Amino acid sequence: MRTPVQNAQLALLLEVTGTPKPGNVDRAREYPDLRFEHFMAGAVGANDGLRMVGTGEPVGESFERAVAGMADQRGGNTQFGALLLLVPLVRASATGELTPEHAAEVVEETTVADAAGFYRAFEHVDMGIGDPPKGMEDLDVRRGADAIPELEARELTLEDVLAASVEYDGVAREWVSRFSRSFETAERIVSANGPVPDRAARAFLEALASEPDTFVVKRHDEATAREVTEAARAALRGDVDPETLAEELVAAEVNPGTTADLVAAGLFIALEDGLAV
Amino acid sequence: MRTPVQNAQLALLLEVTGTPKPGNVDRAREYPDLRFEHFMAGAVGANDGLRMVGTGEPVGESFERAVAGMADQRGGNTQFGALLLLVPLVRASATGELTPEHAAEVVEETTVADAAGFYRAFEHVDMGIGDPPKGMEDLDVRRGADAIPELEARELTLEDVLAASVEYDGVAREWVSRFSRSFETAERIVSANGPVPDRAARAFLEALASEPDTFVVKRHDEATAREVTEAARAALRGDVDPETLAEELVAAEVNPGTTADLVAAGLFIALEDGLAV
Repeated sequence: MRTPVQNAQLALLLEVTGTPKPGNVDRAREYPDLRFEHFMAGAVGANDGLRMVGTGEPVGESFERAVAGMADQRGGNTQFGALLLLVPLVRASATGELTPEHAAEVVEETTVADAAGFYRAFEHVDMGIGDPPKGMEDLDVRRGADAIPELEARELTLEDVLAASVEYDGVAREWVSRFSRSFETAERIVSANGPVPDRAARAFLEALASEPDTFVVKRHDEATAREVTEAARAALRGDVDPETLAEELVAAEVNPGTTADLVAAGLFIALEDGLAV
Repeated sequence: MRTPVQNAQLALLLEVTGTPKPGNVDRAREYPDLRFEHFMAGAVGANDGLRMVGTGEPVGESFERAVAGMADQRGGNTQFGALLLLVPLVRASATGELTPEHAAEVVEETTVADAAGFYRAFEHVDMGIGDPPKGMEDLDVRRGADAIPELEARELTLEDVLAASVEYDGVAREWVSRFSRSFETAERIVSANGPVPDRAARAFLEALASEPDTFVVKRHDEATAREVTEAARAALRGDVDPETLAEELVAAEVNPGTTADLVAAGLFIALEDGLAV
């Protein structure tokens, strides 16, 4: 029987194993500077932080530790968003039933210190993030630990910080919506057939077809994200070969990272639910 | 900085990531019942045992725990031999310099209790092993824990047990020869260029060309193992495409598992030596 911490690590590994996952690094495709082995090393390095949150350490500090360990490889950011979903889900599972309600409780219980840990996590990895939303300039995540006095002055918890980002960040949206898409993805994975990585690849395509990927919006624009959504729908209809779509998106360097994060969270929930590998 | 335990886990993951590794499961090839994801789950499950040996727990007990965790997936035996090499190497690295001499000291210090742990490990996984050598019937590993009274009566340490298998087991040979081929493989990986999984695949082919794989001898016969050695030499000379050789060996279900174990050990030593991923 794997522990929640082990299942979280396995979810990270299975996520990148599934192929094709159009635009993302997977078992069959990679970018010259962001390769499959960087995700392996990221999953190994993240483990200490995952273990911390599984044994009762604070969510923010655990997340920072997970990100610091994940970043100890040459590919840069591999699993930041996935860890931001897995850390509260591991806590939820380690302290009770892994349900949307219990996960929401973990979110509600986050503190200002957790928000500080979240900001410190940005110091370990270059996220290539753009300007913050209006009114949030002092809380620009690019400031890292320098933003902590402002967090403390405004008494903002990690839940508050992420709630401020829901408009443009699909991972933050999960935090404030009881991880609805993560649980939905888990259901798809559990109810599918065949090897788990194949189920993950299918769930990725379905999630990509259901909503524009916010990472693509950030790195490119809204129009590109919508095109990708349309292309994923076409692939699901059978009008486009998902392998061809994968080639095209990698060539264009369009990388739906948030959708991959959702799949990692969905895999974790499915594994905790008893999905056998 | 990764710990020895983390590098051991990463070595397991990178070993299976390298491709082509003719005959073995790798990133591009798998068997219907033994797939890439089983190696991912094996590496996750092995971690507790690796952590035990890294923190001073007995070698045999740690190995048993690593194997039990590794076997918690549906593919069967994925990394038994690799773990039998990694466990003493992790101990050597965690308690001093990772040198052939210090690794040999770890071997010399093994006890009868370590031998008992080794036998117990066989209860967690079906290895499909044949008859033991003459005079070793009472110590048939297929007896598992039932053989422990005999081990105790004869006062056999884990070193003694493996020394009795050097003729037909390449992993046992490493135990009694200061892990010479593991260190040699590490040197090849360190001195090569390019992504680490590509280096591992090349080192695999070189190790396969240098000596008949004992796992192939056990599962097939000496002649088959020699043919594979010749084929690997032809691939290194450029007379055969390694990808074609990989297709052929997988089709014939000829699986040079011991050579893969050596590559995992070599990757671990290289990572401990500072090889960046």
